[in-house]
Amino acid sequence: MGMRYLEDFKPGEVIELGSVTITRDEIIAFARQFDPQVFHTDEAAAAGTMYGGLIASGWHTGSLMMRLLHDGFVRHTAGLGSPGIDELRWLKPVRPGDTLSARMTVLETIPSRSKPDRGILRSLLEMRNQQDEVVVSVRGLSLLGRRPATPGEPPRPA
Amino acid sequence: MGMRYLEDFKPGEVIELGSVTITRDEIIAFARQFDPQVFHTDEAAAAGTMYGGLIASGWHTGSLMMRLLHDGFVRHTAGLGSPGIDELRWLKPVRPGDTLSARMTVLETIPSRSKPDRGILRSLLEMRNQQDEVVVSVRGLSLLGRRPATPGEPPRPA
Repeated sequence: MGMRYLEDFKPGEVIELGSVTITRDEIIAFARQFDPQVFHTDEAAAAGTMYGGLIASGWHTGSLMMRLLHDGFVRHTAGLGSPGIDELRWLKPVRPGDTLSARMTVLETIPSRSKPDRGILRSLLEMRNQQDEVVVSVRGLSLLGRRPATPGEPPRPA
Repeated sequence: MGMRYLEDFKPGEVIELGSVTITRDEIIAFARQFDPQVFHTDEAAAAGTMYGGLIASGWHTGSLMMRLLHDGFVRHTAGLGSPGIDELRWLKPVRPGDTLSARMTVLETIPSRSKPDRGILRSLLEMRNQQDEVVVSVRGLSLLGRRPATPGEPPRPA
């Protein structure tokens, strides 16, 4: 797959980003480091909470989605990082053994007014579990490079 | 510190959440697992990017903020998880050796209409580096329990 630039994406394009399975040990290891709430770190105690068992930290789920976004999108693009997220919703608990599949829908591309070599891609990212329930949705922003001018071509419109 | 419930927080309250120092090895280890863009994983290659050197994945920065939020807020509250984030902005790069200090400002508390034992706390979370620059800001949502009724007290207004 060749490198894709900002102008190569059109609103409505859907990109399947692959899937990942999360384990009990990974949930606990991540949570001990970053989010040691009892329903993320202690299987027995988690059973007595409103979640009824161990669930992954939302930051863990988001980081797994980032990895799928990297492998299925960012590494094939002129990616320059991200200014942020417009909205994130953790919609369903993620549990040990869940297989999570991510999908990106392009919403809009916005060339920078001040920097003609780059722009923002707005997307909707959704990750579903094996029951096809959306567990997390993110309205994300990606900073992407624009296609470099080829010698002999007319300059890009401003 | 006693357990705090939804009604114990008032708009405008500021809670200092402590600080954490991030290392080069931590940046690379997190990024290899979750966000292997070159400016997060390869010090030499990162020097040639627009960031001029290694920077932390935004998901790493966010996860570190979650840890400070846990230690300085969540573990002293009747925390029930989070439905999401209304806005997140990665404002400045985070580099090896940076010391990051987090602060939470309470924006609003919203009792649930359907579940009288809980409600949402909206907050602004900001993490600053040692130059007092805000590196990440998050408008976050926390699900908190309400204070249980004490026997003999009048019932809570609906």
